[in-house]
Amino acid sequence: MLEYRAPERDFEFLLFELYRVQESWRAISAFADFSDDIVRAVLAEGGKLAAEVMAPLNQSGDDEGCRWEDGEVHTPSGFREAFAQIASGGWMGLSGNPEFAGQGLPKLLGCLVEEMFWGSNTGLYLYCTLTVGASICIDTHGSPEQKALYLPKLYSGTWTGAMSLTESHAGTDLGIMRTRAEAQGDGTYRLTGTKIFITSGEHDVAENIVHLVLAKLPGAPSGSRGISLFIVPKYLPTADGEPGERNKLGSGSIEHKMGIKGSATSVMNFDGAVGYLIGEENQGLACMFTMMNYERLSVGIQGLGAGELAYQQAAVYARERLQGRSPLGPQNPDAPADSLLVHPDVRRMLLTIRTLTEAGRAFALFVGMQLDLAKYAKDAEAQALAELLTPVAKAFLSDRGFDCAVTAQQVFGGHGYVKEWGVEQIVRDVRIAQIYEGANGIQALDLVGRKVLRDGGNTVRALVDRITGSEIPLQFQERLREALDRLTRVTTSIVDRAADDPALAGAVSTDYLDLLGYTLYAWLWAAMAEAAPDDDFGAAKWQCAEFYFARILPKTRGLETSIEADSSAVMQLPDSAF
Amino acid sequence: MLEYRAPERDFEFLLFELYRVQESWRAISAFADFSDDIVRAVLAEGGKLAAEVMAPLNQSGDDEGCRWEDGEVHTPSGFREAFAQIASGGWMGLSGNPEFAGQGLPKLLGCLVEEMFWGSNTGLYLYCTLTVGASICIDTHGSPEQKALYLPKLYSGTWTGAMSLTESHAGTDLGIMRTRAEAQGDGTYRLTGTKIFITSGEHDVAENIVHLVLAKLPGAPSGSRGISLFIVPKYLPTADGEPGERNKLGSGSIEHKMGIKGSATSVMNFDGAVGYLIGEENQGLACMFTMMNYERLSVGIQGLGAGELAYQQAAVYARERLQGRSPLGPQNPDAPADSLLVHPDVRRMLLTIRTLTEAGRAFALFVGMQLDLAKYAKDAEAQALAELLTPVAKAFLSDRGFDCAVTAQQVFGGHGYVKEWGVEQIVRDVRIAQIYEGANGIQALDLVGRKVLRDGGNTVRALVDRITGSEIPLQFQERLREALDRLTRVTTSIVDRAADDPALAGAVSTDYLDLLGYTLYAWLWAAMAEAAPDDDFGAAKWQCAEFYFARILPKTRGLETSIEADSSAVMQLPDSAF
Repeated sequence: MLEYRAPERDFEFLLFELYRVQESWRAISAFADFSDDIVRAVLAEGGKLAAEVMAPLNQSGDDEGCRWEDGEVHTPSGFREAFAQIASGGWMGLSGNPEFAGQGLPKLLGCLVEEMFWGSNTGLYLYCTLTVGASICIDTHGSPEQKALYLPKLYSGTWTGAMSLTESHAGTDLGIMRTRAEAQGDGTYRLTGTKIFITSGEHDVAENIVHLVLAKLPGAPSGSRGISLFIVPKYLPTADGEPGERNKLGSGSIEHKMGIKGSATSVMNFDGAVGYLIGEENQGLACMFTMMNYERLSVGIQGLGAGELAYQQAAVYARERLQGRSPLGPQNPDAPADSLLVHPDVRRMLLTIRTLTEAGRAFALFVGMQLDLAKYAKDAEAQALAELLTPVAKAFLSDRGFDCAVTAQQVFGGHGYVKEWGVEQIVRDVRIAQIYEGANGIQALDLVGRKVLRDGGNTVRALVDRITGSEIPLQFQERLREALDRLTRVTTSIVDRAADDPALAGAVSTDYLDLLGYTLYAWLWAAMAEAAPDDDFGAAKWQCAEFYFARILPKTRGLETSIEADSSAVMQLPDSAF
Repeated sequence: MLEYRAPERDFEFLLFELYRVQESWRAISAFADFSDDIVRAVLAEGGKLAAEVMAPLNQSGDDEGCRWEDGEVHTPSGFREAFAQIASGGWMGLSGNPEFAGQGLPKLLGCLVEEMFWGSNTGLYLYCTLTVGASICIDTHGSPEQKALYLPKLYSGTWTGAMSLTESHAGTDLGIMRTRAEAQGDGTYRLTGTKIFITSGEHDVAENIVHLVLAKLPGAPSGSRGISLFIVPKYLPTADGEPGERNKLGSGSIEHKMGIKGSATSVMNFDGAVGYLIGEENQGLACMFTMMNYERLSVGIQGLGAGELAYQQAAVYARERLQGRSPLGPQNPDAPADSLLVHPDVRRMLLTIRTLTEAGRAFALFVGMQLDLAKYAKDAEAQALAELLTPVAKAFLSDRGFDCAVTAQQVFGGHGYVKEWGVEQIVRDVRIAQIYEGANGIQALDLVGRKVLRDGGNTVRALVDRITGSEIPLQFQERLREALDRLTRVTTSIVDRAADDPALAGAVSTDYLDLLGYTLYAWLWAAMAEAAPDDDFGAAKWQCAEFYFARILPKTRGLETSIEADSSAVMQLPDSAF
């Protein structure tokens, strides 16, 4: 079984020792009442739910998968009950608006809860995360009536959310979608079209499903400026907010996927379904991006959760599996072999997973903290940082999560390839995180094209200055300085060269995102070493930091050279030669 | 469907323009008769079989998988018939010993055939490749009677081969295996024990299965020096060489795996099964390594085949899929969107796959050529090179094959995650190549520990000298020189430091293997550019070479720095902290 336990000690370290969240929360009136004990209680409860309710259904959910029958979708055994437990615990309203029965907890804390839920059962948690995303979108763009009707239902998990964007010919390029909406004259609309890859589009875990659907109004401008967003519930709410008449929409089929098999992904047909406009006409993409931005950080955290789950499996296996002898001579002479932990290359693999995961956790929290500061303290610097780092969090955390899962599988040898141990499932499940909610190449283009070039690299430089001004242990100072100088140099170079080379941003964007990610992780490792307590836990932080600086950070040297190439390296091969 | 077509033009380029095989074959009497036309005919026939017989069963074989029923294993629909076609074409005896009805073709040519077969249907081809491996082992170590009995059966695919090494507690560390063999006094032995992960251990594609089984004799030395190798046929051959009495062995179950689902992987129980010693007592591991070494190059080529298959899918998809607009302005203004090929990051992905695959093909052929020269011309330099490069071929080709499959999947976006298009299957199928026949970490340790340290880096230096003396286009000379200097510097550094740091080899082995691989690919790209004809095909070679030098080779800069760390970076974290 894929056992999972929440990395509680690391959570506490990050919250109370590295980031000292009490101090920043004191400045935010909404958070002034949160004591450390409340935080600990929330994490302990979440960890219990993850370990005892969600994790036991992880492999069985994958084995059984979802079943489509005449438009009805049946989730794997136990999913309904587990979802009900998550819902009744109020977990979907954790960071929700308190005016509508949300709990108003910091995003920062939400990040840790999400990591536990993603890590323990990705397929199951998807029913929740889309619900949270839908609630954020409605909270931000909905009318007061829409908020009052939908938010309590979503926060309580009585109803769930789904986002219907993709069409079979229109994935990344939403501007060319064909689903249309027509006003009925009574304030409602009728939607017609087919959407694909709709996570939680149909299922049996809740009594109603709130679809947020992108569609075009008649005569709308072409492209992405002509898209509107609608709330399209599976059952139309009655006057007293209960599920009423069945709406004209349904699941045409479910996808057979590489992984996340417990999560039902539907082709959704809208056949004149009743919808309610949310936000302004033709402003749908901007509204949807509110939800997408939430989902982007969350999907990054999916990668993080997978990395942690993978690490836990691989570390236990390496400790217990006896194979071969240490290059330093037998360490376990009374047994037929030493544990896998004596082998330097096995340690390299484990430390790679560990250092990417722990720095990733610190990074996700940093981004979550910027979102809190931007939202509750109207902090402009935090807002700029959150915008810069959201695509990095989505792509870098999910890419590294995949790397970590594959590396953990390698530690298992042949046992990693068979289903029994469950590690191959982690690889299959996390792979989607690099693809959905904007493929990682799109995140990289967003980073370079919108976030770096648009302000001439100033937000990156401000972040570098902030890091430079922070306390760093002496043993990491020079290497961190070198990495930060490299980041600044590369940023300036891209900004300068992009003016004359319009394809440059896209040509180097993925490498740049990686360069930024690896450099920020070096900062976070140095900062974690600085904040580490004087005990075994703290000593491990120092040893991991040293591994990261010595063995992982050097990748940035190669990335810099690769980014020096102009776009002709990728553009010159003629289309016909591919 | 996963369509596959053999990259014939590239095959011809490598054989006749880059390596000018006719010249080297003229020096080998066994090959003197091979005309270019024979070579072309073999490749054309193989390509046809791959495209028309094997590829159409690739996805269906994955969907249907194998079925175990009371010890009998049923392969997916169509596999029996397809195997019979491969067998009757003589493909398993292609490089086999002509004395026993093998065709005696060069390994070099075999590499290309293998690439087509792996690429078109990995699950199906596994029934063949184990058969070839078993025949090589018997040809090298068997008695004249064993050769006469088994080789014609294996070459013709009437019988197939399987290698029974792994036990549940003994994977990499074969020395601790428990399967035992006892002499019966009549020249035969009785074998008892359980082996796991046995590819083609039981199936229905051939009338008999020749198991090569490792086991311990009573009183044998402990560890790997006490292992003997036995031929254990499923049906004991009668006096006239037909399948006779059923031997006491059988499949206890088959594994449920991440991929290669068309290939049946059994738990094999030997319950006093009759076996025949092959080679000397207690020399089994050395004998098995003959087979393993063959399989190692072949498994590398599995990665190559997967990369080519992945590239073909992704290139077609990118050309046909319309999404978004070029950063240079609309290229297809009459359509709603441009093709994916206008996007620099999509091109980066495709070129990454393409340059790794084409260089990988040149590399596999180079290794195959060394094997031919060593075997047929008793060339000592070729033998040393083959030994050095076999672990690199196994690990680097399979690692890059996996990277390529994942990258191709990314080009497809969400369509890459659903089963329909088949790309996710390539990822699942190729993943095993990094694990079996010696996990890639073991290959890296073999490279550094046995092949580099043992001769103080001399074989690597000789290879660098050979490359330095070859014709290289001016535009790549400086960058290749720099890469070769880096390789030499790092090699010397490891040799020097390993003397005082016994864990160093294992700590840096994977990075060193990658450094060597990426450096050799740079040489091969430069050499391909040098040999490229003056046409569109040749121009593409130059453009791909430039991409490789600009965007991939720089990874070696980071690898060098990473390798500079001593082993304490991985060794200092105490076991209890994992």
